[in-house]
Amino acid sequence: MSSTDVFAQAAAAHKSRHRGAGMSARPTRKVAVVACMDARLDLFDILGLEVGDAHLIRNAGGVVTDDVIRSLTISQRFLGTEEIILIHHTGCGMLGFTEDEFRAELEAEVGQRPTWAAETFTDLDADVRQSMERIRTSPFLRCRDVRGFVYDVETGDLREVR
Amino acid sequence: MSSTDVFAQAAAAHKSRHRGAGMSARPTRKVAVVACMDARLDLFDILGLEVGDAHLIRNAGGVVTDDVIRSLTISQRFLGTEEIILIHHTGCGMLGFTEDEFRAELEAEVGQRPTWAAETFTDLDADVRQSMERIRTSPFLRCRDVRGFVYDVETGDLREVR
Repeated sequence: MSSTDVFAQAAAAHKSRHRGAGMSARPTRKVAVVACMDARLDLFDILGLEVGDAHLIRNAGGVVTDDVIRSLTISQRFLGTEEIILIHHTGCGMLGFTEDEFRAELEAEVGQRPTWAAETFTDLDADVRQSMERIRTSPFLRCRDVRGFVYDVETGDLREVR
Repeated sequence: MSSTDVFAQAAAAHKSRHRGAGMSARPTRKVAVVACMDARLDLFDILGLEVGDAHLIRNAGGVVTDDVIRSLTISQRFLGTEEIILIHHTGCGMLGFTEDEFRAELEAEVGQRPTWAAETFTDLDADVRQSMERIRTSPFLRCRDVRGFVYDVETGDLREVR
């Protein structure tokens, strides 16, 4: 049985305890969270979220790419969010390779380089700060009320980057 | 108190019940899930995920953009995932406006159009299928084992798109 089959079976069991019927698509807490895709980050558990509270936008690194700006633009303009929370974390896979290595590996193996960057980084706090700066300077966002954090996967601590 | 403050306080309480210390960044179940950012989707609960099981990649619509290909490429090459699950859902905010309306609104209000598409769609199943096709034709992915689903936010049902 594939992992997908295991999860699809779990979803069938979930149905009986489903919450969320009749809820609006507009997040109750008016928050959008941008975080890394890392498997150790259960954002509902870490942030104490209830179903319906906040948009969760996640990618490799929790980096603010054009696609994150797209999602935030839609989140704010059509679904009413007003605050943004950025979360990077210790032990991130993005710390383990460089942009040059990534591009060279793809070119060697696939025969072409991507037109996009891998968005690697070497300093968590610095990358949280530059990610916040990308949000603050985007022309498309209505609300630039953003705060950035680093989550420690070993201790569970969520530390604000100032 | 802002919503961000509320969540940061919840995170402090979470620390005492933290799980995940000593876990690898490589997802145990070797799965990457691509889903919409919608606030009603608690993927850990819906799919029965344990901390560490799967990468969660989320954006507006759960659309396969270049940034999702970036995240999946890193997920597969550096962190060993082999299966991909795509999840769209009923009542999605992306069904409520058109690409033309989105671009016209931004141009009128901000004075410029984005260089990226909003990635709106009108048919959930059709968009799941075209999203799977984007994965199957990406040169950068090693594993194209992808299955697509539509989650019903009213009933909690997760239906596979075939």
